[in-house]
This record gives sequence, structure tokens and C-alpha cells, in this order.
Amino acid sequence: MLQAEAFTANQLRDAWPILSSDERLEGFQLLVPAEADEFFLMLSSADQAMLITAVAPADARRWMRLLAPDDAADVIQSVGEEVRPALLTMLDPPTGHEVRALLAYAEDEAGGLMNPRFARVRPDMEVVEAIRYLRKQAGRVEAIHYVYVLEADQRLAGIISFRELFQYPDDTLVRDVMHTDVITVPPDLDQEALGRLYVDTDLFAIPVVDAEGRMQGIVTFDDIADVVREEATEDIQKLGGSSVLPGPYLEVRARDMIRSRAGWLAILFLGELLTASTMGYFEAEIAQAVVLTLFLPLIISSGGNSGSQATTLVIRAMAIGEVRLRDWWRVFRREVLTGLGLGAILAVLGLLRVVLGEALGHSYGEHYFALGLTVALSLVGVVLWGTLMGSMLPFLMRKLGFDPASASAPFVATLVDVTGLIIYFGLAAVLLRGTLL
Amino acid sequence: MLQAEAFTANQLRDAWPILSSDERLEGFQLLVPAEADEFFLMLSSADQAMLITAVAPADARRWMRLLAPDDAADVIQSVGEEVRPALLTMLDPPTGHEVRALLAYAEDEAGGLMNPRFARVRPDMEVVEAIRYLRKQAGRVEAIHYVYVLEADQRLAGIISFRELFQYPDDTLVRDVMHTDVITVPPDLDQEALGRLYVDTDLFAIPVVDAEGRMQGIVTFDDIADVVREEATEDIQKLGGSSVLPGPYLEVRARDMIRSRAGWLAILFLGELLTASTMGYFEAEIAQAVVLTLFLPLIISSGGNSGSQATTLVIRAMAIGEVRLRDWWRVFRREVLTGLGLGAILAVLGLLRVVLGEALGHSYGEHYFALGLTVALSLVGVVLWGTLMGSMLPFLMRKLGFDPASASAPFVATLVDVTGLIIYFGLAAVLLRGTLL
Repeated sequence: MLQAEAFTANQLRDAWPILSSDERLEGFQLLVPAEADEFFLMLSSADQAMLITAVAPADARRWMRLLAPDDAADVIQSVGEEVRPALLTMLDPPTGHEVRALLAYAEDEAGGLMNPRFARVRPDMEVVEAIRYLRKQAGRVEAIHYVYVLEADQRLAGIISFRELFQYPDDTLVRDVMHTDVITVPPDLDQEALGRLYVDTDLFAIPVVDAEGRMQGIVTFDDIADVVREEATEDIQKLGGSSVLPGPYLEVRARDMIRSRAGWLAILFLGELLTASTMGYFEAEIAQAVVLTLFLPLIISSGGNSGSQATTLVIRAMAIGEVRLRDWWRVFRREVLTGLGLGAILAVLGLLRVVLGEALGHSYGEHYFALGLTVALSLVGVVLWGTLMGSMLPFLMRKLGFDPASASAPFVATLVDVTGLIIYFGLAAVLLRGTLL
Repeated sequence: MLQAEAFTANQLRDAWPILSSDERLEGFQLLVPAEADEFFLMLSSADQAMLITAVAPADARRWMRLLAPDDAADVIQSVGEEVRPALLTMLDPPTGHEVRALLAYAEDEAGGLMNPRFARVRPDMEVVEAIRYLRKQAGRVEAIHYVYVLEADQRLAGIISFRELFQYPDDTLVRDVMHTDVITVPPDLDQEALGRLYVDTDLFAIPVVDAEGRMQGIVTFDDIADVVREEATEDIQKLGGSSVLPGPYLEVRARDMIRSRAGWLAILFLGELLTASTMGYFEAEIAQAVVLTLFLPLIISSGGNSGSQATTLVIRAMAIGEVRLRDWWRVFRREVLTGLGLGAILAVLGLLRVVLGEALGHSYGEHYFALGLTVALSLVGVVLWGTLMGSMLPFLMRKLGFDPASASAPFVATLVDVTGLIIYFGLAAVLLRGTLL
């Protein structure tokens, strides 16, 4: 299907993620004009902004005028404050007006993502009139997949898909066949909620309607596909215990990479310092029964691992709307059961390890069975504790107004480490009193 | 915008994620028929299958016939083998034929996701003819957003958006205005690659073309939005160290929840048992210098945390195509720099902790400064090692044909724990020989 001249554009698209900015600009300028237009429209706003600010002003003007108002607004939002006025003046006056209106909305809300150019008809038009009227609009609007039926005061009366409109006899009134149970969103709806709505409804475009019911624009799925992926990437990066990277992995400079990761790592380290203090508190017990320390990494890591599992599952379930704040008690009950079950499994493995280790030659001393029981019971306690901390922290974070994803796997593991030590040495102090201790 | 009778459908949609299967069926049967149809079409295949297998056969037939062939195939694929033939016979014969053809493709490939009903015209039609011809097809096809231009032998000659077609004068030949540089995919393209292509290109639908260039169907964005989110969820669950849950978090039964998590947790535990053996190897050193153990959790957790960060960032960058297998060397060099930088930061904090701890009253003995240096150097080594393991394991996994996301944060942390111990006690043996040891 690829033709010779199209091949270059496709090659460039494939290579794009691994090219430097200079190479991208160079490759882009090698495209034949017809391809360059299409290629340009496919790029992300950040890439479009990069090209526009790098080429000669005459070219920049041509590219700016190629963009739909919502996309032009995105490009303007991704350049520095000082360049924005110049880019705005490159637009034709009516578009410039529309773009300024869009810039008034936050970039990550429905109002900032919407396109004010949509296909519209009046409710009292006949189908044949409506189709003729749409044909006139076709060059101006972003999409004619859905047709919005507006009253004279711009209030949204209903919606009809173009495909449906096409099937009715010529003299049918639009009012009689339009759908009136329309899903709409307010201009200040957050993009994360918008993303969920798209995935849940499979709609191609969602109308943005102000408090008076007046139609403001449409947000189309392509503006949202990027958002859904971006949100997932940010959540994953936070789950791994980093800040969100300022760009694609291979493009972030070493200094910025260290900065994004050092913050959380240092905070976790400071938290982890508590383990040294806690260990200091138990120094006498450790000196008396060095054998206890052999199982220390095993026990605290098991708590950390079970906490990582729980926090990851709960954070994701929250992000996609499966679990809400008010479900915390249902989650708590589930995780008590799960934590006890998982703890019991590891306890059996741990006890076996001590008993078999003793049988196979490593001597843990005459009280090896009591030691094994201490390890096993500690595992139940630590795993249950890790599971509960991991599952409840995202709720606490959200309740306090933070992003639940901040309760990252390393964060939970660090919290569980300190309590894991206390559980282990505390149980040892009780169970091994008079024998090892 | 919501009308009284529509409110119920919207209420049901909102409550859906937290209802049991029985409550869902009950709520669904309370909807008025016109709403029920739309509501049904919005549901996931799994939910559609649940409803169809729960209602009376006459109703089931009506719902099955409401589905487009690709959606019907998805429903049939999500029920048990024994129910499939009954559902297939509910379809009208031509649709049944199309659905059987789709079932021959894997569910997670382009062929299994595509819809064989798309809007088509011939290259030698005039625009006015093409529009008339499309109007006849409108009831049958899934979408008329893009119109596919097919030669007599079904080979795809080009594509034109409906909106463009609409703008040309009536007597223009389709051949003269269609686009010929079309992005197509083969029927066996994996859904993950398809998801990436959608996010990269912002296309509404992508044509599926066989090896001879013959058009087989289209995959539309709504089939893919779910896939993009599902893949992210599966990746996140694996990153947290679980298997993929068999359903939404609150719907998975306790037994299945434990099963999904116990496998990895037990494997990690068995790996972590190596720490007990390693510690046993250093038992003499530990008995001689108990003070060494105080910093043990701190050091191995820092390695685990830096490994979690690195593996999460690299796995996500791979999943969204920012990093490819051949980039491993670029990633390695970056992570050497990053690991050294992060290790140095933690080393300074660690040295400060020992020196300040000594000054503030906890006595680490006369060789406290040597101890501090050992802790600091171990941190550099452990963090560098964690960073490199975390960033390289996803490459190794992919190279070996596994999912890179299996190199989960807990998995990397466990691997780093054992080596962290060796680095710490090894450095201590060298640096503290003749003083503490």
C-alpha cells in the first residue's frame, strides 16, 4: 500500500522516537509538501511546537494556520510565555479569537481540550436541508461523525449521528429523530474523569456544555487517547517511586533524570534511617542471638513485597474507577482475609526452611524450632501488616487530597520495613525469652 | 440535558462497577426498551455475555442481533465453549457467517478485533454517486467516518474521509481525490502494537489488509481504547508483583485474589531465602561486629528502591515504544551515570547519619568513621547495582521472549537484596579488617 514517495514519511514516523530535535527538523524538511502537512498534523503538540519555533516565520505561519483551534491552543500552551503572542498573531483573526477563548481554560480540563468547531443543525430542519447545510460546514468543522442539534440560543437540544441522519427519508424533521438523552460534560471537567468517560462509553466525541446548557465545543477521542496513555504513564512512574519524568525516557537529560529520582529516593532513605534507630534499640537482643539477624532481610522484604502488591492493585483499581473512596471498608475486609492467607503460605515455607536448614547441617542451636515458630509467626504478622498498609494508604492519600499513586510500592515497602523489625524482634522477645534471649 | 426516563440508565451506568451480577441483571431489566438497547451496546463484551446468558432465549436472540459482527464475536469468545454454538445460531445467517470468519482469528489480534462492515466506494465513481451509494450502506456499516475505495478485486486502492468527500463538487472522480498513502495493518498484528499505532496516529479507524492487499475489515478506535487501558492495567499489576487479576478488584473472589498474589509472593520468598543463606555465610563477622547489622535494612532497601525506580521507568518506556531492544546500550550508559549520581547522594546522607549519630550519643565504637565510610561506599555500590539490574532486566526478559513487565519492582528488589548483602559485608571485610573485624 505504501508508495515510493510516501515511504519517507512512514520511515520518519518509525524513527521519530529515537531522533534528536535537530534530526527531526531535518527529516521533516525533507518531506514533500503534501506529506509534510499530514505528518505535521499527526505529531504531538510538543513536537509541533518544536518544529514551529525552529522553522522560518513564513513556514511557521503556514503550519499554525493548518491547525484546528484546539490544537493551535495546545501548541501555544506548550511554548514559553515570550513566544506565545507571536504565534497568536500568525493565526487568521477569527481563529485567533477562538484560540484566545480556549486559552482561558486550563490545559487539562474539558474546556482546554475542546474544539469549538462542530457540525450543527437546527431541530426544525428537514433531513435533506440538514445534509445540505452540513455539506457547507464540512470544510470548517473537525468531524461530522455526530451532528449537534442547537436551538436558536445555542442550547443543545439533541444529537444525531451522521450515519443515522443519512438513513431517514428526506422530509423527516431532525427534531423527530434526534436523541435527547445526551451525555455532556462541563468545561471544567478534569481530563482524567474525561478519559474514564471515554473508555466507559466508547463515544467518538463528547459535547462540552456550560451551566446554562449552551454548547461550547466538542472533545474528540483523539485528544483523549493521548491523555489516557499519559495518565497511565504518570501513575506507573509514581508507582515505581519516581517523580513524573519531564519527557520521554531517552530524551531526559542525565541531570533531570537524577533530579526526578533523587527526591523520592532520599525521602525513602530518610524513612529507612528509622530502621537503623530501631535496630539500635534491639542491639542487645541481636548481640545475644545473632542467629535472629539471619532471617531479618527475609522477613522485612516479605512485608515490603506484599505491601507493593496491595498498593499497586488498589491504586490502579482507583484510577480506573473500580474502587471509590467509600469502598475502603470493603477493601479492608478483603485485604485482612488476603493478608492472612498469604501470610500463612509464607509462614509454612519459612518454618520448613528453618527445620530443613537445621536437618541439612546449618546449626541454629537447640532452640531451632522456637526460632522457626518466631519466623513463621512474624511472617504472618508482617505480611498482614504490609497488605493492610499497602491497601489503606492510597485511601488515606486520596482523603488528604494527594494523588493515591504517591503511595508507591517503595514508599509502602519502606514504611513496612520499620514495623516489620518491631514485629519480628517483639515476637522474638516474647517467644524466645528464657531460651535464646 | 438528562430527561426523567433517561436518568435511570445513567444511574445504572454510574452504579454498574459496584453492583453484583444479579443486581446488574435486575437493573438492566428495569430499563425502558429504547434505553436498554443503547445501554447494552455500551457495555463491555464480558458484561454483554453475562446478560445474554442470563435472560430468556428470545431476549438473548434480540440482543445478539443488535451487535455488530466484531462485537458479537467478542461476546461469543467470552462465554464457555459449550454455550457458543447456541449463541451463533441466534444470529441471522449472513452475520453468523461473518462472525464465524472472525472467530478464526485470535481475540487479541487485528483480525479478531476488526469489523468486516465498512463504508466502501469504487475509484471510478463520481462524488455524487459515491454519496448516494454510501447513503444506502449507512444502515449496515459500523461507521462512515472514513470511506474505503476498493478495486473490483477488493484490493484497497485508497481512502477518503467522508468529510472530504462532502466538500468536492458532484462530478469529481473519487480516484482523483482519494489518499493513496494509507496506513494498514495485517490481520495478525498484535493488539498491543495496534494500541500504540492508534495513540501515535490519532486515526479513527485502521483498515486490515491481507497479504494480497485485499481489504478484510476495519478496527475502530473504540475497540482499542479498552485495549490501551487494559494493557496498562495488566502492566501495572505485574509491576506490583502480582499476576494479572481475573477481573475488577472488588469482583475477584478471595480465593482467586490469594491465588493471583501467592504465586509471585512465594517465588520472591524463595529468592529471598538466599539472603538467609548469605547471612549465614557472614555469621562470624556479624557476631564480631553486631553494629554492622544496624545498617543492613537501610542498605539493602536503598538498592531495592533504586532498582524499583529504574525497572518501572524502563518497562513503561518499552511499553509505549520510547525504548526498543536495540537501545539497551544507551540505557545502560544513562543508568551508570544516574546510579552513580543517586548513590553519591545517599552515601553523603548515610555518612552524615553515622557521624551525627555518634556525636548525638549512640556509640558505634572508636572506629565509627571507618564504619561510616563502609556504609557510604556500600550505598554507592548497592544503588548503582540496583539501578543497573533494574534497567537491564526488562531487556533480558524481552530478549528471552518474556513480558518485560515480569521484571517487577519486587522481583528486582529481591534480586538486589542478596547482592546488596554481599557488597556490604564484602566491603566491610576489606575496609574494617584489623579494626572492627
